Amino acid sequence: MAELRQNMVTKEWVIIADERGKRPDDYIESHQRTITETQAFYDEKCPFCPGNEERDLEIECFPSDNDWQTRVIYNKYPALSKEGELLRTFNGVQRSISGVGHHEIVVESPRHNTTLALMKPEEVELHLKTFYSRGWGIRKDTRIEQVIYFKNHGERAGASLKHPHSQIIGLPVVPNNIRARLDEARRYLDDTGNCAYCVMMEDELKNKVRLVTVSDHFVALVLYAAPSPFHTWIIPRKHSVSFLYSQPDEIADLARVLRDVLRRLYIGLRDPAYNFIIRSAPVKEISNDYLHWYVTIVPRLSRTAGFELGSGIFINPAIPEESAAFLRKVKV
Amino acid sequence: MAELRQNMVTKEWVIIADERGKRPDDYIESHQRTITETQAFYDEKCPFCPGNEERDLEIECFPSDNDWQTRVIYNKYPALSKEGELLRTFNGVQRSISGVGHHEIVVESPRHNTTLALMKPEEVELHLKTFYSRGWGIRKDTRIEQVIYFKNHGERAGASLKHPHSQIIGLPVVPNNIRARLDEARRYLDDTGNCAYCVMMEDELKNKVRLVTVSDHFVALVLYAAPSPFHTWIIPRKHSVSFLYSQPDEIADLARVLRDVLRRLYIGLRDPAYNFIIRSAPVKEISNDYLHWYVTIVPRLSRTAGFELGSGIFINPAIPEESAAFLRKVKV
Repeated sequence: MAELRQNMVTKEWVIIADERGKRPDDYIESHQRTITETQAFYDEKCPFCPGNEERDLEIECFPSDNDWQTRVIYNKYPALSKEGELLRTFNGVQRSISGVGHHEIVVESPRHNTTLALMKPEEVELHLKTFYSRGWGIRKDTRIEQVIYFKNHGERAGASLKHPHSQIIGLPVVPNNIRARLDEARRYLDDTGNCAYCVMMEDELKNKVRLVTVSDHFVALVLYAAPSPFHTWIIPRKHSVSFLYSQPDEIADLARVLRDVLRRLYIGLRDPAYNFIIRSAPVKEISNDYLHWYVTIVPRLSRTAGFELGSGIFINPAIPEESAAFLRKVKV
Repeated sequence: MAELRQNMVTKEWVIIADERGKRPDDYIESHQRTITETQAFYDEKCPFCPGNEERDLEIECFPSDNDWQTRVIYNKYPALSKEGELLRTFNGVQRSISGVGHHEIVVESPRHNTTLALMKPEEVELHLKTFYSRGWGIRKDTRIEQVIYFKNHGERAGASLKHPHSQIIGLPVVPNNIRARLDEARRYLDDTGNCAYCVMMEDELKNKVRLVTVSDHFVALVLYAAPSPFHTWIIPRKHSVSFLYSQPDEIADLARVLRDVLRRLYIGLRDPAYNFIIRSAPVKEISNDYLHWYVTIVPRLSRTAGFELGSGIFINPAIPEESAAFLRKVKV
């Protein structure tokens, strides 16, 4: 029989629909050729390839402008504008804030035909350090309430350009969704004296069945109430509200764990489309005992339809324990 | 400049990204042939076509078993099982409820090659009456807390079979998402003495710019804070918590309005994929002054990516006022 499972930290329900009889193998992508086989090292039409840079869009390069490994630029079609005053209109149905904020792109490598799963650990580490540096940069803007770090890999995950890149958006509001998680986490602390995320992680370390990989500083696991197949969280073992409070050795460790998980997906499921997001606290929540930052990796292997839109409940045909066992077995 | 808009009833933010320069015309589908041209009246392999019925799956037919116009059957691969006890496990991270509930399919017509937008008003009315009848039927099961009525039209909206059909799922929990809307609506009533949905509707009737069509009992409008292009709500003008309290003349009127909106989308945008959902109160919320039921129509014209997953905020490149003006102009 199917089962409804509740995420203990977000209180969201999912339906684990094992009746549909899908096994982890069923999610292996049918495309045969890998990214390095279908794409060239350099593409003359790609705006992210070295030699084609639009220098006026540039924000920061690492380690240096002339020999960059990662490069941060303004999005040419930004969702929000950097310039402008934060104006609020609250008039009946019309409640708006001017669209000010930041929308940056992180080019993850000078190579056109690579992806995080195929990079060296030091390259993934430099990418995370770039996020870290820009996060602190955007945070200085007092109009900003929330920074979202994310990657869209593959067309089904919303990527329109193939050159490996991620995005950072700085928002002038705290999303409702994040406020709701804050409220739930605070209620859990009030009820029990503990951080819900810390409790969940300890429970998972004991249960073991949903673990993907464990390091000194992080735990990667398929969520007990995974809303979609292979939905994975990487949780820091030390309680902390923000990615931006990470120490250099923790960032290096996260790079290894992130690369490990992405390689398991890349090899095990043959390069599925995915989104990856760093879920960090609102900028002005400096510290507290209840909010815990983490990384989410969402392979895009199923589709949302009317039921999900109407209920907020996802139907996941993949059993989380089987997904985790499958990922653990992949040779990386 | 882009604008952040807040839905006054759900408190969710969206980014209306007009900088991306998309006009309503840009959303017209490129496929040239309509559903009646690409599909046959009858398909021998279709389990929903007359003559191919699996009688043991049948629940109810309208107006009669032998000459049905709409037909309700059990989903062969249900997300939830009708039989079984409602068992709860709450043990640390493991919080689950046995997957009991209802998962029914409404075959909307004996004709394989039609769709709601092309049906006669009486046919759409019979479809809504079928929803109504099954809603009351499922509600009798005391394990059920919430009924979701929805349709997936087109592959991008999650439809796997082409024969026109909708679905009904009866859940043994109230989704978190619906609880949150209840809380927001109750808070609005406490603050102002009014139903937020009634206030919003009155405001829209005065503003006029986002209206699509207005009838005696319903208002169809593109949402001020539409999360995606042409995202439309049909709201009953009389305050009521549930679709199931509708009178026969109201259901007939809703059929006309729903058909009108779907025809505008079908003709104006050339049959886009869409989801349509009836958002009604939890079954055990018999009546209150703050929750207001409505219908949502979501054309699937944009894609969700990492930003939406990470923030719950949608980026909508279509300006709601332009989308509404476009739909008003379509000749139906």
